[in-house]
Amino acid sequence: MTTPADRPRIGFVGLGVMGRPMAANLVRAGYACTVYDINPAAMARLAGLGARPAETVAEVAEVSDIFITMVVNDAQMRAILFEPGNAAQAFGPGATVIGMSTMSRAFVQDAAARLEQLGVAYLDAPVSGGEVGATAGELSIMAGGPDAVFERCRAALEVIGANIYHVGQRVGDGQAVKMINQLMVSVHNAVAAEALTFGARLGLDQALLLEIIGHSAGNSWIFSNRGPRMVERAFTPPKSALHILVKDIGFVIDTANSLGHPLLLGSAAHQLYKIAAAQGLNDLDDSILIELAERLAGMRRDTASE
Amino acid sequence: MTTPADRPRIGFVGLGVMGRPMAANLVRAGYACTVYDINPAAMARLAGLGARPAETVAEVAEVSDIFITMVVNDAQMRAILFEPGNAAQAFGPGATVIGMSTMSRAFVQDAAARLEQLGVAYLDAPVSGGEVGATAGELSIMAGGPDAVFERCRAALEVIGANIYHVGQRVGDGQAVKMINQLMVSVHNAVAAEALTFGARLGLDQALLLEIIGHSAGNSWIFSNRGPRMVERAFTPPKSALHILVKDIGFVIDTANSLGHPLLLGSAAHQLYKIAAAQGLNDLDDSILIELAERLAGMRRDTASE
Repeated sequence: MTTPADRPRIGFVGLGVMGRPMAANLVRAGYACTVYDINPAAMARLAGLGARPAETVAEVAEVSDIFITMVVNDAQMRAILFEPGNAAQAFGPGATVIGMSTMSRAFVQDAAARLEQLGVAYLDAPVSGGEVGATAGELSIMAGGPDAVFERCRAALEVIGANIYHVGQRVGDGQAVKMINQLMVSVHNAVAAEALTFGARLGLDQALLLEIIGHSAGNSWIFSNRGPRMVERAFTPPKSALHILVKDIGFVIDTANSLGHPLLLGSAAHQLYKIAAAQGLNDLDDSILIELAERLAGMRRDTASE
Repeated sequence: MTTPADRPRIGFVGLGVMGRPMAANLVRAGYACTVYDINPAAMARLAGLGARPAETVAEVAEVSDIFITMVVNDAQMRAILFEPGNAAQAFGPGATVIGMSTMSRAFVQDAAARLEQLGVAYLDAPVSGGEVGATAGELSIMAGGPDAVFERCRAALEVIGANIYHVGQRVGDGQAVKMINQLMVSVHNAVAAEALTFGARLGLDQALLLEIIGHSAGNSWIFSNRGPRMVERAFTPPKSALHILVKDIGFVIDTANSLGHPLLLGSAAHQLYKIAAAQGLNDLDDSILIELAERLAGMRRDTASE
């Protein structure tokens, strides 16, 4: 593989459900990619496409102009960047980190400030679109950071996503937009479950409700997408596991609380997601909220542990 | 105007924002229509199109095979049907009433039972689509009642609406579907306001949020429709007045309460709509909920009384 001299060398850490196809698309686009994951099988698959597997995160950092991470949460990102022997101590001059997971706004702001002291730039760029969007290279990307940093990363982002939004000049603005989206998603999913369950209580046919509401003012993207899974009880394997929304609406509420900002519907939804998690539903599809609504209404006593 | 002998004679009571264009479409389709409204100007407009204005509701009932009502609420419908000298005492044999307003499920079930004792059938057929849909003859109609009653009314309904759903065999099933839709609409509108306001708190550009969320999983029909009005502060004249949703979510919660059925998000939204009504916002566009969200968050002190 050849890479023009003016093309940045890319490092990619976190080759899970989302990260693997994102990294694969960068390799196919001709970028020289060095990759790392704790799962050797995930690294082997990328190596088969032409990526260079590394032994450690620091080894990735040493050879990366742009260092992309797609990890699970704040704790993993903190470890990758700042634990002794990890990335922060290994970056070369002028390196840029792109954090593409959904993480807390406060954490990414803090991480960016620490990296800046080392001369490393940070672009805050969470995504929307799931595994399907990641595989197709059609993610929506919400990037927060200064123009110069964004422009440096734009070409690589355009390989990964189809809708690239530069949403603000500050690190954290990307996570902020993602929070607004996830607030809507979380409430829409919970009210879809509540409404379909109340419909059943009223003796209505839920398949007919999918059809009618789908063509009416009550429709939402989530109702169209999760409503059929709710009615068909398609909870496993999860297309989008409940724990993701439990985490994301938690970030929203934590952030609002830190600002003293009330979110009445968001908080009510947050409680429902925590109840669902406490009932052991975390690893099922997030459409499982319909079963929670049925349990809360006394319409179902069995468990979802099939 | 001529009407084939096998075409039902239609009576139409309630010629307001919705009823006037609905009745006009029936007249234009060649139905013999007798109409009544307490507002003489509304009757004159229909007469100008070829409808026959009546002096009383009873006079409409006497000459109607199908008697359509589009009134404001349960109380108006009760008066039209059951007050001394009104419709119930005047219907001919085999008459059918189509109630097309959003009314309480318990009331329409009770009214239908009283009419049945008089030999009068009832079709419960609320609509969705607003003034625009009514004018274009493209309303969605959710009809509840026995097959025979529905089939008798189908041709007239197809003049009024584009999506005619026969949602169940029982009077009340139409209102039940409408309630499910309005539960979703009420929550979606409230969370759109909550999310856009929180976005402003986080320093994000609301126009950019409309664009990004509109292309993301957080989108809803209501967010696309009301979101721009929220951001542009287009609250008056109302395209859809707040008091309609205050009434409709009230029906939802009353019905759920009568069945002992919990609606956590619906109840939280109901409180927000009652707060908005108590703050004097009833006659503004329902996108005014964004101003309520700002007031609750301490981001605005002025009133919407401009």
